[in-house]
Amino acid sequence: MDRFTKGLETMKQYVTPEALAQMVEADALADIAPDLRKMIVEFAYGEIYSREGLDAKKRALVVITAVVTQGAAPQTKTHITRGLHAGLEPQEIVEALLQLVPYIGFPRVQNALVIAQQIFREQNLIET
Amino acid sequence: MDRFTKGLETMKQYVTPEALAQMVEADALADIAPDLRKMIVEFAYGEIYSREGLDAKKRALVVITAVVTQGAAPQTKTHITRGLHAGLEPQEIVEALLQLVPYIGFPRVQNALVIAQQIFREQNLIET
Amino acid sequence: MDRFTKGLETMKQYVTPEALAQMVEADALADIAPDLRKMIVEFAYGEIYSREGLDAKKRALVVITAVVTQGAAPQTKTHITRGLHAGLEPQEIVEALLQLVPYIGFPRVQNALVIAQQIFREQNLIET
Amino acid sequence: MDRFTKGLETMKQYVTPEALAQMVEADALADIAPDLRKMIVEFAYGEIYSREGLDAKKRALVVITAVVTQGAAPQTKTHITRGLHAGLEPQEIVEALLQLVPYIGFPRVQNALVIAQQIFREQNLIET
Amino acid sequence: MDRFTKGLETMKQYVTPEALAQMVEADALADIAPDLRKMIVEFAYGEIYSREGLDAKKRALVVITAVVTQGAAPQTKTHITRGLHAGLEPQEIVEALLQLVPYIGFPRVQNALVIAQQIFREQNLIET
Amino acid sequence: MDRFTKGLETMKQYVTPEALAQMVEADALADIAPDLRKMIVEFAYGEIYSREGLDAKKRALVVITAVVTQGAAPQTKTHITRGLHAGLEPQEIVEALLQLVPYIGFPRVQNALVIAQQIFREQNLIET
Repeated sequence: MDRFTKGLETMKQYVTPEALAQMVEADALADIAPDLRKMIVEFAYGEIYSREGLDAKKRALVVITAVVTQGAAPQTKTHITRGLHAGLEPQEIVEALLQLVPYIGFPRVQNALVIAQQIFREQNLIET
Repeated sequence: MDRFTKGLETMKQYVTPEALAQMVEADALADIAPDLRKMIVEFAYGEIYSREGLDAKKRALVVITAVVTQGAAPQTKTHITRGLHAGLEPQEIVEALLQLVPYIGFPRVQNALVIAQQIFREQNLIET
Repeated sequence: MDRFTKGLETMKQYVTPEALAQMVEADALADIAPDLRKMIVEFAYGEIYSREGLDAKKRALVVITAVVTQGAAPQTKTHITRGLHAGLEPQEIVEALLQLVPYIGFPRVQNALVIAQQIFREQNLIET
Repeated sequence: MDRFTKGLETMKQYVTPEALAQMVEADALADIAPDLRKMIVEFAYGEIYSREGLDAKKRALVVITAVVTQGAAPQTKTHITRGLHAGLEPQEIVEALLQLVPYIGFPRVQNALVIAQQIFREQNLIET
Repeated sequence: MDRFTKGLETMKQYVTPEALAQMVEADALADIAPDLRKMIVEFAYGEIYSREGLDAKKRALVVITAVVTQGAAPQTKTHITRGLHAGLEPQEIVEALLQLVPYIGFPRVQNALVIAQQIFREQNLIET
Repeated sequence: MDRFTKGLETMKQYVTPEALAQMVEADALADIAPDLRKMIVEFAYGEIYSREGLDAKKRALVVITAVVTQGAAPQTKTHITRGLHAGLEPQEIVEALLQLVPYIGFPRVQNALVIAQQIFREQNLIET
């Protein structure tokens, strides 16, 4: 199995079939950086996420933590969504974010919780 | 149980009895900021780490990820050590660090792996 | 006086009675992380801001500096607003931001000045 | 030639005559920090950009890299625009951003490529 | 008064006469970047620190906060030393660092307190 | 040519034959993360550095800028050394670092210049 196929296969643990189909059909950055998506699929998913020794839920937690610590809002949305698909419970995500308070401070945690709340509401995971 | 006692109780999952006794007896910053250790025990451990909904190993993974993403070397050493005590396998820690490569880049991951290696060697967790 | 009460008491130096009443009545993150607001009131305000040895204006300056250095836009707005309520003059805030130029560079200072300007205008502190 | 004049002269390499005229006539922060623009012109352009030993295209690349690494979105837009005016090819900018993937990770690179794409489209540098 | 002279004059508020004389006589980076010290004196001190509207102690607090938030260890040492010379009390510096805990987390605060403690001890400001 | 071979080939532009031989023979992290070096060679050098559209000197400048902006000291040393091997003049590196002052502030630039100076001296590129 080549790296791209392996990457797509691994991505199924993190993204819905619809989202995956959409990514394959329409690459938003195709006109300026067509290789970026390829790198993400082949390297990030085909080589890293697909490694053994750490389960998908823990990988998703680690990635959520990294992008929240960086303060990268668009990726926080993406990876909380993928974490839910990988099997993380909403409460686990909330607890992971609260666990960050003593290490990165309230501001970035608060910004991430607002994003998490919006995703949970859209997916009807919490009562509104 | 008050917050300080609860914090010390929770810390037992993350630090050895010897290290805990040492922290209680000798506070390195006692002469200028005696409240810092109290805050760490009461707030970080008594209020945050002791929450339900996420197990100790996942909390340790999240904290390791945060301090590595920040590039905070002394805390990387502290929290990899605590993560091992909480039950993380060396391989899980290595995998979590490699999982960060696509999100924070090679430099900080490489610096953290050097620290992890040193700890694993000191604890005879890998052959040297 | 318990920590929550002490925190609310301390917050009066930084937020208007209306804003405080609003925070107590409606917690935007109540459905996913009801403890976050409690932690902010009890820990940030009840334990930290309420300490002696540094006046409220200097505490506000320090916090504004931290969130601007982090590039955290929503918190920059919050804490410039609180700093004004704590008694900082608009000019002091502007000077503190300009003082940061040699240390964090123009980009983050410029982004923060745009936010400060908007707040000063809304509060009629500068002529438009 | 004084520093302000030298700064404006140097800026011509990076901004269009229209944009420069607009900056001189209307300073968005004039009411709260009239000295900021002066500092940018005199210090950033009059003293730094105008130095010898590195050509304008390389200076622009260095600045784009810095603001992308910081995750400063408004400045990413400003300095990619100025880099194009300084003579950087769109492909060079894209390559510089992809070169950052192993060092700062995919998230900030991806956010910057979205901004670059928008600028290239507005300037009809790529087919849409 | 030219900017360099004004900068040196302003620096007297932040550095001892001995340290200032040493900086003027021996510039550690003179062989590769002789202009850096000139820029720091002229721009940072001659143009920024020397502005009106914020007193020297507050400027020092702001700068200490910025470098601690960045995690820049050598500058943390420099600017705590300069803050003491500008008239900040050791306790004010400690309080400012503790005030940062909820905003930047324990790790960077702890690292800065270790540096502060060392300086206070060297200057016999605390009993050891 | 496979990715590993292509990566090694590309690395020759950035590292001396001795350093390359040393990297191939002895991998410092071989006992805990043998795949890291492989990823750096295959992905960073075999896929990214080896792309067309930006010459080696500009790629080196971009990477130096990124690690200096992050404040990653060990990588600053590595990549200034590689940049010199790729053909950057010492003066170009110094100018690139000074160009960063208005964007990331003096502290990180100063720390990087100290590292650059040490490398230039070791390679007898400046008179001491």
